[in-house]
Amino acid sequence: MRAAQYSGEHRIVVNEVEAPAPASGEVQIRVAYTGICGTDLHVLHGSMDARVDVPQAIGHEMSGTVESVGDGVTAFAAGDKVTVMPLDWCGTCPACKAGNSHICQNLNFVGIDSPGSLQELWNVREDLVVPLPASLSLEHAALVEPLAVACHDVARSRLTEGETAVVIGGGPIGQLIALVAAATGATVYVIEPNPERRALAERLGARTIDPTTSDAVAIIEEATGSAGADVVFEVAGVAVTALTAVDYAKVRGRVVLVAIHPNPVPINLHRVFWRELELLGARVYVRADFERAIELLASGAVPADDLITSVVGLSETQSAFDQLSGAAAMKILVNVQEG
Amino acid sequence: MRAAQYSGEHRIVVNEVEAPAPASGEVQIRVAYTGICGTDLHVLHGSMDARVDVPQAIGHEMSGTVESVGDGVTAFAAGDKVTVMPLDWCGTCPACKAGNSHICQNLNFVGIDSPGSLQELWNVREDLVVPLPASLSLEHAALVEPLAVACHDVARSRLTEGETAVVIGGGPIGQLIALVAAATGATVYVIEPNPERRALAERLGARTIDPTTSDAVAIIEEATGSAGADVVFEVAGVAVTALTAVDYAKVRGRVVLVAIHPNPVPINLHRVFWRELELLGARVYVRADFERAIELLASGAVPADDLITSVVGLSETQSAFDQLSGAAAMKILVNVQEG
Repeated sequence: MRAAQYSGEHRIVVNEVEAPAPASGEVQIRVAYTGICGTDLHVLHGSMDARVDVPQAIGHEMSGTVESVGDGVTAFAAGDKVTVMPLDWCGTCPACKAGNSHICQNLNFVGIDSPGSLQELWNVREDLVVPLPASLSLEHAALVEPLAVACHDVARSRLTEGETAVVIGGGPIGQLIALVAAATGATVYVIEPNPERRALAERLGARTIDPTTSDAVAIIEEATGSAGADVVFEVAGVAVTALTAVDYAKVRGRVVLVAIHPNPVPINLHRVFWRELELLGARVYVRADFERAIELLASGAVPADDLITSVVGLSETQSAFDQLSGAAAMKILVNVQEG
Repeated sequence: MRAAQYSGEHRIVVNEVEAPAPASGEVQIRVAYTGICGTDLHVLHGSMDARVDVPQAIGHEMSGTVESVGDGVTAFAAGDKVTVMPLDWCGTCPACKAGNSHICQNLNFVGIDSPGSLQELWNVREDLVVPLPASLSLEHAALVEPLAVACHDVARSRLTEGETAVVIGGGPIGQLIALVAAATGATVYVIEPNPERRALAERLGARTIDPTTSDAVAIIEEATGSAGADVVFEVAGVAVTALTAVDYAKVRGRVVLVAIHPNPVPINLHRVFWRELELLGARVYVRADFERAIELLASGAVPADDLITSVVGLSETQSAFDQLSGAAAMKILVNVQEG
């Protein structure tokens, strides 16, 4: 079979590799689509070399059908549509014992710390496999994982119907958060300087603000009767957005920190104190977020087609990564069985 | 009557002033003791001149007895022991309407934005007056307000019995937080470089860590079986403690930001994200915190005598402020009727 493997030095190479039979307790999945995300880009750029054994197939946003199952697997059968929740926790660390296994202190993130889905056949432990409804297309189902991230961020924020949410950053995760927030019944503002991203957010139903030409804080103040937003999602990941995120929040508002800031950044703790704000870290997802993501895609509440920029064949994986550097590209899927 | 008034230019002047009768709905209190706190020091140093009309009696940590009542006051009678919750909210702003009147967007903090308790007779609106049990000494009762701050911080943290709390900073509020956390049933560590403050924290029952000679993070890790602390209180208010506060927290731990950081400071958002931490601003108190503080003092769970460094007469108010600059001084009370 073929596998698109990260091979170090900024290269993805498609290699012919052996396809082992599924071991006991494993499900062998014929991968249909694999989406490429920001974390995969970090792998390609070498920032995660300490965690990736080259050459290794990466990828963790996927859909596929069960090809065969190993001994003892009872929940799945050949032909089932599935996706994978790529978290392999230890079960014994303090975080796992406290019920937070999704952010296990020894977490193996499948597709980074172990092989991922950019290969035609992929063996995955049964408990990581998530069934999909037959009605959901495999192309759309490749969005389950990133949408589960957005569902987790919104769940973490405790956003409720009728509240106002500000999403800072209209990249793929920001757009998904905006959609989940809207599906929750919130009024959603996306703050984004790029006009193409703003246009997409508007097509998807959000209100948008260009922070380079408007006073975004004043607009949110005005829209909320001087209260401020109930929830703010910091998805842009730059120092200025981390600094200003709290400025949109109402008294006792929740600010969810979604973006990755590798280094400490200045935060206005005086505002956090003065308004008794709540800053919440949010990372990956729990099973309920996966279920909710599947439901939102299957019901059409999240219009997957509008988010998929293009679909490329496996041999074009490297160039798909290159395309993603452009701000206009949202989600590029690799059709793992073709091209 | 006499009043110790902030008169600008770093001066507190004791002046003879008129004592108006209580207006309708007001309680006239014969102030017994007024404690001096960090905020009063900020007033003296001129940092709050925009909010204080000079000359003005400041002070808001107090106890006293009802001298007389204005028309329509029914809940209090002459001779009652009382304290004051010095928050005068507007009742109409979005924060008030949402039930967060204690951090009203137009809050009048009594003793700063309007006259305070460093005067022999003080007229206060009835709804701000809080009854004290007859068994509680007026000296101890002067600690109700700062203890209510600590009760609020602990309530905000959702600390429960059996959890581990780290208090960064062993000043007056840090010591009170440590006591309230201990009364809640937590194991408490106070991180404090000053040996006198550490010694006091130990006398009061906490474990202490000198961060200048020990690896405080390693000690907390070790003490919690590599989990980290459930709750961290940042009470020191310097950049390095804001930066390191998150390092003590377990996965999904709560970090309460108690200290005032006037300017933005670097925060390790990667740790906040990675561990899904919760950073919580906490400011002043609600009525339930006042009730809890009174209960803790009345029951002896908080040993007030150990926290009161000295009691001075009204004419010594200015020098009491000067003494407070020393790290060893915890709480200095002004006996408003004497000296």
